[in-house]
Amino acid sequence: MTAPLKAIDGNADLAALMTDLAAKARAAARVLALAPPEQKNRALAAIERAIRANAPAILASNAEDVAEARAAGMTSAFVDRLTLTQARIDGMADGVATVREIVDPVGAVTESWQRPNGMTIERVRVPLGVIGVIFESRPNVAADAGVLCLKSGNAVILRGGSDSFRSCRAIHDSLVQGLREAGLPEAAITLVPTRDRAAVGLMLTGLNGGIDVIVPRGGKSLVARVEAEARVPVFAHLEGVNHIYVDASARLDMAKAVVLNAKMRRPGVCGAVETLLIDRGAAAEKLKPLVAMLIDAGCEVRGDDIVQGADTRVKPASDEDWTTEYEDAIISAKIVDGLDEAIAHIQNHGSHHTDAIVTEDAKAASKFLSEVDSAIVLHNASTQFADGGEFGFGAEIGIATGKFHARGPVGAEQLTSFKYRVHGTGQTRP
Amino acid sequence: MTAPLKAIDGNADLAALMTDLAAKARAAARVLALAPPEQKNRALAAIERAIRANAPAILASNAEDVAEARAAGMTSAFVDRLTLTQARIDGMADGVATVREIVDPVGAVTESWQRPNGMTIERVRVPLGVIGVIFESRPNVAADAGVLCLKSGNAVILRGGSDSFRSCRAIHDSLVQGLREAGLPEAAITLVPTRDRAAVGLMLTGLNGGIDVIVPRGGKSLVARVEAEARVPVFAHLEGVNHIYVDASARLDMAKAVVLNAKMRRPGVCGAVETLLIDRGAAAEKLKPLVAMLIDAGCEVRGDDIVQGADTRVKPASDEDWTTEYEDAIISAKIVDGLDEAIAHIQNHGSHHTDAIVTEDAKAASKFLSEVDSAIVLHNASTQFADGGEFGFGAEIGIATGKFHARGPVGAEQLTSFKYRVHGTGQTRP
Repeated sequence: MTAPLKAIDGNADLAALMTDLAAKARAAARVLALAPPEQKNRALAAIERAIRANAPAILASNAEDVAEARAAGMTSAFVDRLTLTQARIDGMADGVATVREIVDPVGAVTESWQRPNGMTIERVRVPLGVIGVIFESRPNVAADAGVLCLKSGNAVILRGGSDSFRSCRAIHDSLVQGLREAGLPEAAITLVPTRDRAAVGLMLTGLNGGIDVIVPRGGKSLVARVEAEARVPVFAHLEGVNHIYVDASARLDMAKAVVLNAKMRRPGVCGAVETLLIDRGAAAEKLKPLVAMLIDAGCEVRGDDIVQGADTRVKPASDEDWTTEYEDAIISAKIVDGLDEAIAHIQNHGSHHTDAIVTEDAKAASKFLSEVDSAIVLHNASTQFADGGEFGFGAEIGIATGKFHARGPVGAEQLTSFKYRVHGTGQTRP
Repeated sequence: MTAPLKAIDGNADLAALMTDLAAKARAAARVLALAPPEQKNRALAAIERAIRANAPAILASNAEDVAEARAAGMTSAFVDRLTLTQARIDGMADGVATVREIVDPVGAVTESWQRPNGMTIERVRVPLGVIGVIFESRPNVAADAGVLCLKSGNAVILRGGSDSFRSCRAIHDSLVQGLREAGLPEAAITLVPTRDRAAVGLMLTGLNGGIDVIVPRGGKSLVARVEAEARVPVFAHLEGVNHIYVDASARLDMAKAVVLNAKMRRPGVCGAVETLLIDRGAAAEKLKPLVAMLIDAGCEVRGDDIVQGADTRVKPASDEDWTTEYEDAIISAKIVDGLDEAIAHIQNHGSHHTDAIVTEDAKAASKFLSEVDSAIVLHNASTQFADGGEFGFGAEIGIATGKFHARGPVGAEQLTSFKYRVHGTGQTRP
């Protein structure tokens, strides 16, 4: 079905290959930036159909990757991330449909005003250009990232993990088929056609202006490498060391529901809570039930002295626990002296990702939402809402933890820049 | 009046000094981020008063810098940029008043929507944190940048040219006086207290997370160094190789007024036009008058063969001319075959800063404004409107030529990021 794995001999050849890919992607980006929404949506509809129709071929390619990973002794968690099923392929196709339905951000006039001299200035959204997406074992990222970049008028260069190379190539075939059917350039969604790991390093250099921004999708070591080496802007997703502060005035039932959901719905996602802060004034009523609920649900609780005193099953927390993203059914818990100490703890130990307060006191909520300097701050809601889909963005390419350009969920709108259009009648500047 | 120039012995001491400054600026940034608009405006009013009252001291310090620069044989253009006068000090104080009057961007809710589950999500503006401003000989940048950062809730670390050190220190005294009178931390506007040039390199490392963004204000060599070395985001201002395309349907009188203003109002600013493109269909009527007007106004015209044929005073243009920012009374001029060739020329030779079309044809204007990928695109108006003040931003810290975060004039609003505030009633994620 697909061609044999391509061998690239030597770094000079690889550099030439990558530079050529980037040049073609740049040319495609210019076409895509001006493509009308209907044409992009025709491509998305064709991509959805192609993914569904090509499911057998995608599954066959994936089976080869999985067999190789098993033979190489990869962990079962790794193999699980790598494995595609009919249900996962259906999910990918559904995701394409969702992206087709969201509002096209390109060309939207976000502000418009008139100057005293009669000039009208409009601020209008434009695509960023060429986006480099570097991901690891999950092959579905090829489809998710590819179509979100397409929707936002950007060309994309996809570099998947070498272990998922055959799966990505099979998915990429469907993406290209959709572009072709809609008359859009195939280089608009480019897959790096080699498993050579040196391709990642080349992408991080920006390929001589060929890549405008890098989006890393993967574990901490990948993101750290990208942050350290990249010579172009990065939409990086660092840790989510997230907190919930249970205020004295919180309703116990709400606190229990929010904390349980925030930790245990999916303990491994970046929006999961890692540290529970409980107001000293609330401890008498709420500490025992919250801790017992978590432990009964299968969560390990690591606490300070008071929390340890509340339940014999609590383990002692070390200093390191307050800054750890467990990505697992583990939570640290601590008693604080009111709102100010809670905010100070979050400021000093958190990662500015997502933090929540549970309280019936509107003034306390307002202070928390103002003073906690995180991308997402919530009042009386679960931290697991930190997600582009849950925000109504339709899809996301990741969650940015920086403060520049994009912060929080990165959807189609966040993959755009803007320009100013000025309409005059011959104005000159005095 | 002011202390003697501080001597810093050795790089270890300098690194310790800079890290300490950044830590104090970070603490001040936290206070400033939460300071109410009235308090920041009280500080701005006090700064304006202090600058006016301290004018004699500022002029005396400046006279010392100027004498030193003259003794060192600096060029007269350099000495002019360095020299303060009573009028320039009045201008600085007026600038502070303008910044006080603009709308405070911090806390503004730019979007707000409700999710089907009842949660309300708000997107609200927050300051960026600590901004490092690196500038050259113009001492007034200390005041301009300092107060714009203050208005936008950011702390700032100012590093002026070593030649303007005494002048900057005298201006900084007034800034600190204003902060003190309003009860804001003095470290909110920090001046690097040494002329040691190694301080710039340390700032570009980000001082271990102490600086969030660098704004270089100066010539090409400074900006190039900052872009190459910085390990934190940069709001860089690269070249303005700007174009005006005179379409066949342009009115000659409007084309003449716009072109003359765009080149000759101030030939050295970044919004000045550098290349004039004239449609072949317009050449018979418009080429001679436009070229003659420019040369009569004291502008050197370098043209292609046809432009040279229009006036004996035209010099031949080399390939290099099409990509040169002259910053002087020089313009390159070329005949193009219609709109598509004009757009292609701008795409291939321009710097994506500011480009304009003069035409009476609404369709041509719309195509030009859509397809030219520059921060600012204008129809029937001078490129010299590329300026935060002219856009109605009140003041600007520079013009960004990147596509990320800030593009075009960078005013108070562009010095902010945002966060999402989520208001729930106990929602958990299914």
